[in-house]
Amino acid sequence: MRLYLLPPSFRPQEPLVLTGKDYNYIVRVLRLKEGQEITGRDSQGNTWVLRIVNVSAASCTLLSSGRTEARATTDALPSSGPEKTIVLYQCIPKGRKTDDIIRMATEAGVSRIVLVHSRNCVSDFTGSEQGKFSRFESVVREAVQQSGSLVPTVVEGVIDIKDVPEHFGKLCDTTGMKGKGLFFHQCPVGEKQQDLVGLLSGFDGAAGILIGSEGGLTDAETQNLIEGKFAPVLLKTNILRCETAAIYAIAAVQTLLETSCQ
Amino acid sequence: MRLYLLPPSFRPQEPLVLTGKDYNYIVRVLRLKEGQEITGRDSQGNTWVLRIVNVSAASCTLLSSGRTEARATTDALPSSGPEKTIVLYQCIPKGRKTDDIIRMATEAGVSRIVLVHSRNCVSDFTGSEQGKFSRFESVVREAVQQSGSLVPTVVEGVIDIKDVPEHFGKLCDTTGMKGKGLFFHQCPVGEKQQDLVGLLSGFDGAAGILIGSEGGLTDAETQNLIEGKFAPVLLKTNILRCETAAIYAIAAVQTLLETSCQ
Repeated sequence: MRLYLLPPSFRPQEPLVLTGKDYNYIVRVLRLKEGQEITGRDSQGNTWVLRIVNVSAASCTLLSSGRTEARATTDALPSSGPEKTIVLYQCIPKGRKTDDIIRMATEAGVSRIVLVHSRNCVSDFTGSEQGKFSRFESVVREAVQQSGSLVPTVVEGVIDIKDVPEHFGKLCDTTGMKGKGLFFHQCPVGEKQQDLVGLLSGFDGAAGILIGSEGGLTDAETQNLIEGKFAPVLLKTNILRCETAAIYAIAAVQTLLETSCQ
Repeated sequence: MRLYLLPPSFRPQEPLVLTGKDYNYIVRVLRLKEGQEITGRDSQGNTWVLRIVNVSAASCTLLSSGRTEARATTDALPSSGPEKTIVLYQCIPKGRKTDDIIRMATEAGVSRIVLVHSRNCVSDFTGSEQGKFSRFESVVREAVQQSGSLVPTVVEGVIDIKDVPEHFGKLCDTTGMKGKGLFFHQCPVGEKQQDLVGLLSGFDGAAGILIGSEGGLTDAETQNLIEGKFAPVLLKTNILRCETAAIYAIAAVQTLLETSCQ
């Protein structure tokens, strides 16, 4: 763990007593001992150095030794994270794949993961949304801690695929960013198709990436996305499983976004 | 499955009788019935359409209905795969992560995966190499079949990290390709460092990508790689788990390679 996400009860001036899950993580998983330090981030995004001052059988006490620069170059934190906003629209895949996709997208520093229902989705969260989203939050939390990500990744949804362009448009309006919507598919759509390098050349804004589920997208869905100004991207690659497709697309887009304005 | 890898016993003019694992896959997993067709690839790389002519309790018989174009545009096969050669040098991570990395790299169409031993590797295959490599072959086989990859991915190793530049140099000499070696890391190495877009701009050859294990690379290893003409690449990303790092780097490099010469 590179970064410990502090509980909302954290006050910099007061000792922080941890029990239960958090105690277990610090003492049993990370095996931190009295006198050792850890970097924590509070709910406002401030980063703090905390010293373990006491470890007992069921609780441990941490004391803040001061605020630190979030982007400090240390061994423990990434020297520079991604700076561009990426929103992942993920059509819900089968089983536990959603967890894997959320984990990798969070590590990569995706700002927002919006779960989408499309025609070919076989999974449906109806009735179990609350349980699912609370698990997704744990996955995000763990991935943020592991990767030291400074992006507070949010998971939301489920929205219908026909509402994706409007959802992305509103997000960009709210934040005042230019947006570019992209969706990835295996077969050419139409004639005048740009490749990813062409699409992102010189672009400096937020990217919205839509990834289909196992069954892919229907023609009507594809058409609707194009009408909503989402550009089809044909990757010169094999057919990827959807969990591989998500991180593959994120990596391709992020690499181009992060270098295009240097 | 988009592509069935035919056993070496396959002869186009003769009925192919499958039992055991292959039977199980065709009949139980894919649930193919008499009269249905499947695309198969033989050990020479030719692609054939096969019809299931008989299914019994323990065997099934397939008959070739003719050779097909490997790059035919059908729903079942990718319309175009990657064309550039990528060699992944992967320092051995813990546990089953190697399987995940091999699976994703094979899907993406990496030509060769070379397992590497570095100072910070905690896993060691000594004594169990044979078992491990036979499992890796199954992982590759399954991933090739799923992704319809036309690249016959090879897994080899284990080599020592100090021998990586020489290994990659020999590979490029043998195939007559220009090679560019890259390694990914989290902290800046030296001053004059190019980003990935700069490194691959206009490059048309084979890329060698080295990915560290959980503990990263030591300074001596980094220095040795640089002396061996491997270029350090600083990705503007968070700290990625090594299984995410491999597919992330492959996606970034492949996207740039596949578009740079268009």
